[in-house]
Amino acid sequence: MIRLYHRLTSGNSYKVRLLLSILQLEYEAVAVELEHGRNRVDEAYLRLNPRGQIPTLVDDELVLWGSTAILFYLAKKYDAEHRWLPAEAAAAAEIMQWLELAQNECNTGLFLARAIQRFGYEGDLTTALRDGRKALDVLEARLRDREWLVLQRATIADLACFPYAALASEGGFQLSDWPAVQGWIERIRRIKGFIGMPGIAGPEI
Amino acid sequence: MIRLYHRLTSGNSYKVRLLLSILQLEYEAVAVELEHGRNRVDEAYLRLNPRGQIPTLVDDELVLWGSTAILFYLAKKYDAEHRWLPAEAAAAAEIMQWLELAQNECNTGLFLARAIQRFGYEGDLTTALRDGRKALDVLEARLRDREWLVLQRATIADLACFPYAALASEGGFQLSDWPAVQGWIERIRRIKGFIGMPGIAGPEI
Repeated sequence: MIRLYHRLTSGNSYKVRLLLSILQLEYEAVAVELEHGRNRVDEAYLRLNPRGQIPTLVDDELVLWGSTAILFYLAKKYDAEHRWLPAEAAAAAEIMQWLELAQNECNTGLFLARAIQRFGYEGDLTTALRDGRKALDVLEARLRDREWLVLQRATIADLACFPYAALASEGGFQLSDWPAVQGWIERIRRIKGFIGMPGIAGPEI
Repeated sequence: MIRLYHRLTSGNSYKVRLLLSILQLEYEAVAVELEHGRNRVDEAYLRLNPRGQIPTLVDDELVLWGSTAILFYLAKKYDAEHRWLPAEAAAAAEIMQWLELAQNECNTGLFLARAIQRFGYEGDLTTALRDGRKALDVLEARLRDREWLVLQRATIADLACFPYAALASEGGFQLSDWPAVQGWIERIRRIKGFIGMPGIAGPEI
């Protein structure tokens, strides 16, 4: 039995819901509310996830926090064809490289610029906007002459970088300045099992 | 032939040098200088690594940026016994979880507090100090009753979280407030093949 602690407006939670939907996995969703720019979490939640962030995934005995670790786990455990996370070292490491972008400039830039302006998080908007532009520039350069970030198909690298790129306008970025990123977003929206979230059109859960 | 672009004072570069040393891998090191709080990189470097950060690893045809992706790659490719990165899904995902801490609060906290104060990086010191305390608190809680972050042995999870914890005093943190973290740092320093860096005692490269 899989349980996911998430919030509908959280892009990091949405990454995981998206892969769960694509892999057609059943799960129980538990909403974590936002209060004054912070997750409203109790002691029981902090025992599961001492960072106090979302998402957290529970799969029987295993408790995992962090969207990257959860994407990695679901793909490795439940995608027997290794379509979403290849088994070979170099390709898997290239996936990790883009998960690292998702954890860095996508997070310190695209995520934070949106979180400060939309949800009242603390932080420095100037550096968030700078990092967000860098994230989009790096994605744009990579996608200018290829359809997906790694290999010739969508992988968890794409799912990890996609949400905060697709939500960039809520952080004050004009996505028309990054046309290859826009085309990639449209390709992701056509993946079988795709779902949306508030701010990203598509069938929502 | 492995080539590593790095800087001696960079904890993220050091993580990789540490694993290279432990795995007894030969490599060529290329220093990237710091200038006004930024890496001095040219167009050739940006073609290898569009983020412009360090480290970057080149192994024959493969180019990888980001310390987490590089640790993952080296362990997966060159550690045939899977000692540093287990093959099984749940254990591997737990490793990813701690790599995620290394990419988040260790980075937005411990790394940034040091970088702002010591190297003149831009950023908000208040949130950096808050995130750094959280990183140390999460590590402390985990290590209070166990020796290593995942499994009963050191893995790349420990190597990824260790450097900026060990350098925390340069970011203004008093490590004596986190005694379990201090004990873990000492255990890591006794790993066969351990090397140091400026600020972390041990044989340096």
